[in-house]
Amino acid sequence: MRELTLEDLDDMVLGATLLGTGGGGDPYIARLMVRQAMEKYGAVKIVDPSELDPDGLVLTTAVIGAPTVIIEKVPAGTEFTGCVNALAAYLGKEPVALMPIEVGGMNTLIPLATAAEMGLPVIDADSMRRAFPQIEMTVFTLAGIPAAPMSVADEKGNVVVFETINNSVAEKLARASVMQLGMANGISCYPMTVKQVADYGIQGSMSYCVDLGRKLNAVKRGEECAFEEFLEFSGGQKYFSGKIIDIDRRTTEGFARGTVVLEDLVDPDRVMRVEIQNELLMAFEDGKPVITTPDLICFLDYETSDPITTETLSYGQRINVLGLPCAPEWHQPGMLELVGPRAFGYDVDYVSMKGIAT
Amino acid sequence: MRELTLEDLDDMVLGATLLGTGGGGDPYIARLMVRQAMEKYGAVKIVDPSELDPDGLVLTTAVIGAPTVIIEKVPAGTEFTGCVNALAAYLGKEPVALMPIEVGGMNTLIPLATAAEMGLPVIDADSMRRAFPQIEMTVFTLAGIPAAPMSVADEKGNVVVFETINNSVAEKLARASVMQLGMANGISCYPMTVKQVADYGIQGSMSYCVDLGRKLNAVKRGEECAFEEFLEFSGGQKYFSGKIIDIDRRTTEGFARGTVVLEDLVDPDRVMRVEIQNELLMAFEDGKPVITTPDLICFLDYETSDPITTETLSYGQRINVLGLPCAPEWHQPGMLELVGPRAFGYDVDYVSMKGIAT
Repeated sequence: MRELTLEDLDDMVLGATLLGTGGGGDPYIARLMVRQAMEKYGAVKIVDPSELDPDGLVLTTAVIGAPTVIIEKVPAGTEFTGCVNALAAYLGKEPVALMPIEVGGMNTLIPLATAAEMGLPVIDADSMRRAFPQIEMTVFTLAGIPAAPMSVADEKGNVVVFETINNSVAEKLARASVMQLGMANGISCYPMTVKQVADYGIQGSMSYCVDLGRKLNAVKRGEECAFEEFLEFSGGQKYFSGKIIDIDRRTTEGFARGTVVLEDLVDPDRVMRVEIQNELLMAFEDGKPVITTPDLICFLDYETSDPITTETLSYGQRINVLGLPCAPEWHQPGMLELVGPRAFGYDVDYVSMKGIAT
Repeated sequence: MRELTLEDLDDMVLGATLLGTGGGGDPYIARLMVRQAMEKYGAVKIVDPSELDPDGLVLTTAVIGAPTVIIEKVPAGTEFTGCVNALAAYLGKEPVALMPIEVGGMNTLIPLATAAEMGLPVIDADSMRRAFPQIEMTVFTLAGIPAAPMSVADEKGNVVVFETINNSVAEKLARASVMQLGMANGISCYPMTVKQVADYGIQGSMSYCVDLGRKLNAVKRGEECAFEEFLEFSGGQKYFSGKIIDIDRRTTEGFARGTVVLEDLVDPDRVMRVEIQNELLMAFEDGKPVITTPDLICFLDYETSDPITTETLSYGQRINVLGLPCAPEWHQPGMLELVGPRAFGYDVDYVSMKGIAT
């Protein structure tokens, strides 16, 4: 069991921003919620599955909606306790812990605030260890674990509970309700036992996020060898250092889509193109894919090493482009069909980071 | 308690088509479902609230979706038992009876088939005694009875349960789910006690529908004084006999909208215009409203006296236009805001049928 300190929280926010791969929602508001929860309800506890009853119920909670609205509509908090309580009531069982669906972006932090309010620990696992735009894009889907029974709640008292025949329908139904409830709601899905989390979840992802953020904070402070240690810890690699020479953004079909073109800071003949669908999904150099989903594409400010989210990208910005391998739990049958390039409409093969890194 | 006979069923189908006021879905398929249920499960029972435990739970069921899809997608039946069972499970209580939401169109008959399959009676009441396109357009809304907890189910096993803060949100959320589930689903809403049905429902509407259909069948058979008896029973009046000289139909915002213009069969200077939003909602003569929602506008074939539904309207068709007063239970505070002309976007005052009939 780990009690989250304020220092941990700062590191977690930085790590979560990085794992958001340009999307995932700004953790700033969620950080305020966690700080407030720490002050009001005491310690926020992160536990390993082995510390809990294997048959105990674990519920997730997250914000769901349009990123553009989520940024502007400050969560009330009651939408998260609301959806968790509704699902627990529906299942007729109280949870022993909460869990993030995604460790990446603001949804890393929201379960911490909610759990503190509910007097529950947060389990040190998740289902993405990065941000993805749809709720069926999880290692739980690969394991055949249903997203439903699932609940969506708003801050006013509207609650919807779903039973679905597959996780793709679950995503569509949840999204349809969210469109009627103000485009920024709480969701609780993938109810499961502690044992299922231990067997099928991505393990240690909250700790990983804190540690990753800590390493990146050392880079930001300019500590010696910090960048090398950061790469070693994450298994990542720097692919490109360039400035933005073209940026195209559009919001279509509920996604914030876009294309960014970077020119190498030294060699103007080297050009990288990065494709966005909420998150940074694909990086091409000279038309050839070099970093591909589900591996992580991370933009760091060239000067400060701050992770850059897609909504703040601007012409002339100088950026280091990093690739981080996705969590090893992703590498199992069905991964590419669910979260590979073709799942997002890119007719391109997945490029293993290990293949490139050698 | 009344056991529905085959003759009752034929009368009910005719009455339901008439009360559909041009919409409400074709009762033909629903009639087959009821006949099949009568053969398979035995008698279909219609009961008065006074015959049931006042504290017993009453659940409704109906088809919800786009009329164009409902006509083409034959119900499986499991969507209706599915939504009722899901809502009963959510409430943790078994129903003592089912009830139609609307007595008008196919939703008059669907609860009969579902109730027979579930071994339950149908309560002799409803919340509209005509067809209306939205689930909040009920006398229950006027009484402050919430539509939720409410459930929507499809025939595949997907189920959604809703808790909402008002009936307008309930309508929007249900509609959003239906759009994801194939546009023709089962809905169960307005769970209430038998006592609430007795206090706030429209009483005797199933019997009224059978009796109204019986009177109209007599008209169709050409029995003496049958039309006068039909008008006396329904409180209705013939407003116009004309042929269609113009018809404009469009499907917008999920409604089948349209305008029909009729020219008097004798005096070509007399023209009636009828506005459609799924149902026939407003009738104007010389630009002045003569029959207005929630009163019923019914088109009868000039020759056969068959009720005509909006999708079969065609140029040159000869029609008797009847006005029938809405159920007296509608006349209470809030009626016009909920189902009057302005609720459908017509900037026109409601014209009382009694005022005109005198």
